[in-house]
Amino acid sequence: MLEQSTANKPIRCKAAVSKVAGEPLEMEEVEVAPPRAHEVRIRILCTSLCHTDVTFWRMKDFPAMYPSILGHEATGVVESVGDGVVEVAVGDTVVPVFSAQCGDCADCLSERSNICSGLPLCAGGMPRDGTTRFSFAATGEPIHHFISVSSFTEYTVVDVAHVVRIEPAGIPHEMACLLSCGVSTGVGATWKVAAVEAGSSVAVFGLGAVGLAVTQGCRMRGAKRIIGVDLNPEKREIGKRLGITDFINPNDNNGRAVSEVIKEMTGGGADYCFECTGSTTVMAEAFRSSRMGWGKTVVLGVASGAVAPISVPSHDLLRGRSVVGSLFGGLKPKTDIPILAQKYLNKELELEEFVTHEMGFDEINRAFELLTQGKCLRCIIWMDGAKENGMKLKENGRGCEAVLADAVVEIESRLVTPDV
Amino acid sequence: MLEQSTANKPIRCKAAVSKVAGEPLEMEEVEVAPPRAHEVRIRILCTSLCHTDVTFWRMKDFPAMYPSILGHEATGVVESVGDGVVEVAVGDTVVPVFSAQCGDCADCLSERSNICSGLPLCAGGMPRDGTTRFSFAATGEPIHHFISVSSFTEYTVVDVAHVVRIEPAGIPHEMACLLSCGVSTGVGATWKVAAVEAGSSVAVFGLGAVGLAVTQGCRMRGAKRIIGVDLNPEKREIGKRLGITDFINPNDNNGRAVSEVIKEMTGGGADYCFECTGSTTVMAEAFRSSRMGWGKTVVLGVASGAVAPISVPSHDLLRGRSVVGSLFGGLKPKTDIPILAQKYLNKELELEEFVTHEMGFDEINRAFELLTQGKCLRCIIWMDGAKENGMKLKENGRGCEAVLADAVVEIESRLVTPDV
Repeated sequence: MLEQSTANKPIRCKAAVSKVAGEPLEMEEVEVAPPRAHEVRIRILCTSLCHTDVTFWRMKDFPAMYPSILGHEATGVVESVGDGVVEVAVGDTVVPVFSAQCGDCADCLSERSNICSGLPLCAGGMPRDGTTRFSFAATGEPIHHFISVSSFTEYTVVDVAHVVRIEPAGIPHEMACLLSCGVSTGVGATWKVAAVEAGSSVAVFGLGAVGLAVTQGCRMRGAKRIIGVDLNPEKREIGKRLGITDFINPNDNNGRAVSEVIKEMTGGGADYCFECTGSTTVMAEAFRSSRMGWGKTVVLGVASGAVAPISVPSHDLLRGRSVVGSLFGGLKPKTDIPILAQKYLNKELELEEFVTHEMGFDEINRAFELLTQGKCLRCIIWMDGAKENGMKLKENGRGCEAVLADAVVEIESRLVTPDV
Repeated sequence: MLEQSTANKPIRCKAAVSKVAGEPLEMEEVEVAPPRAHEVRIRILCTSLCHTDVTFWRMKDFPAMYPSILGHEATGVVESVGDGVVEVAVGDTVVPVFSAQCGDCADCLSERSNICSGLPLCAGGMPRDGTTRFSFAATGEPIHHFISVSSFTEYTVVDVAHVVRIEPAGIPHEMACLLSCGVSTGVGATWKVAAVEAGSSVAVFGLGAVGLAVTQGCRMRGAKRIIGVDLNPEKREIGKRLGITDFINPNDNNGRAVSEVIKEMTGGGADYCFECTGSTTVMAEAFRSSRMGWGKTVVLGVASGAVAPISVPSHDLLRGRSVVGSLFGGLKPKTDIPILAQKYLNKELELEEFVTHEMGFDEINRAFELLTQGKCLRCIIWMDGAKENGMKLKENGRGCEAVLADAVVEIESRLVTPDV
């Protein structure tokens, strides 16, 4: 078998390498070293593009590092494992996840946290030793990893703490891929972070994949009113299919702040507000849209300047409102991704709507174009020969996404209210 | 009986009137109109001075209004009631509270909120009609109310939604007075807002009356480590009597940020941080001192510029930390003050330590001096003849308080760390 014959040896394969900030990825032959202790080498079947990839791809300075292999949403098959790996075996279908679950630290042992303190987020290398398993085949020059995953390559090496075995069998690879980041983040936030109650009112700022997953999560939890906010009028339709009851386009309010419109619609403010754009200005507007007394604002977007401050009036905070953030929607990957996969199989969780495009690995730069032009929710990028049964690739162009990284300036100018 | 003979008639009495921002209060004869429907006229027995009085006393512009009668911590006796008041009767011992509990609105009916939406905070007048019951006896010129209480007067009129009957009997008047704002706010925050668990680590920023009440609340809930932070070295002693296990003076850290010291002491950050100074800079430092994964920062201080923004790095928020605010410690006054009074009688809640000074009404400006000079925690100001048994007034000068309104500039310069 191919899988076993390559064990303990470097593998040469194709990877899309990011060499210069904002420039197209370059297809290169790379060498992928064998997994060391606690590591797993994975043959990628499919991967998808998330806004966080785009955010880092555009970033000139640390924590972005060059050259690197981006990508962190994927499904793959275990090719070989390093010493001490017993949790997965060769041939297992897995998803790698940027968020770790070592299982032993105070955080993994607590119900209250999903931020593994055993293996903190690592920039550029493997989480246990900081070194890389990637190099250019031609020159031997090392290539950096990306948030412990690096899926834009035919083979990658991931720490076992970042690997989730996909059970039950039966979930299509591209759907499992969606669960490895964006969709899980959105659904998880409604479940683990906000714990939305039946009958609640909710506002979702930004109807990209994460925001639409929040929408679905709120519907699954029985929210009565789900208000979607997006500058792209096309979001109204896909939003309604996934659960929104009301749609607000900030451009259509005759200059009124979105928070004022939401307060009017809900009789004082939404019970829960979800910020899914990464704009700190939108974060503040989401906060203002939340109800006094118990309104909770959940921050999901990653701000471009990762330390950009969120600023809210302290006297508003004193009125019983709160702001809470989370990574990966508060989910523990190994515990919770299998639960979401089962919900998909039970038809409780809709995933098909999120896949608006599919393409081959060689077309990966087109996925960047589609996402940055606001023309897709998720592009599934298939490695050569990995798409089952030669099925036709999907390219419906429906439900195109406002890329909020681009639209933020406009949103900010619309959302800023005089009182801040 | 005096109480009944004055019913339905205006009462002339003595009040300490604030006429100019930051200037001493002036003793004036005022006329107090009879209570209208849903209102209660109260003969004040004792009142105490809180930092919020000082904050408004110093404020030149709205929401401060002149002339006005400040004061919002008090104990009194019901002199007469307006139409529709059945909850209290003439002769009942009560405490007025700035925070309402109408009992009928969505917030009062919910366990999640203590911010009564039936009677929102009202500036300058009675909450139902905005008018005043106070005027100068000599000229008839109206005098503004202060946050629905106005206790620096021998008689006041308060909406019944702001009145709590003190049961059980047996709690001394000055101790009931403490429960009407500051001490309840601190204890309540540990109970209703943070829900501090046994074994937790806690950091308390600012050891004034609210911060020391937080300290006690944390001890009552079984916190294992309680770190007090204050610029005033004298706070170490009183803090230890009330429950702190460790004391940090930001001046003594050789330039290290307080958050760094707390992270080191707690192995990564405190489970709960309480901000009791009203400085938005300290709020941000408290946030940084909280643990990744589940650290919660509770904001209790009222910032001087009431809309001053609290600013926290969004990427820190994404690591599972949260910020939550509250008014009156999340307590519902009518429901929860009697519970705290019973805890005092059960000797579970210590209140004596908070009373550092007592004086007569005519000396009220000295209370402002003591508080603004950092020389007291709470001054109890007794109306003429109201102190039982001619007991000696307490003036121990012990446990003097760093008035953080004054110290904020210095705190800010000490606490600011380079990464913000």
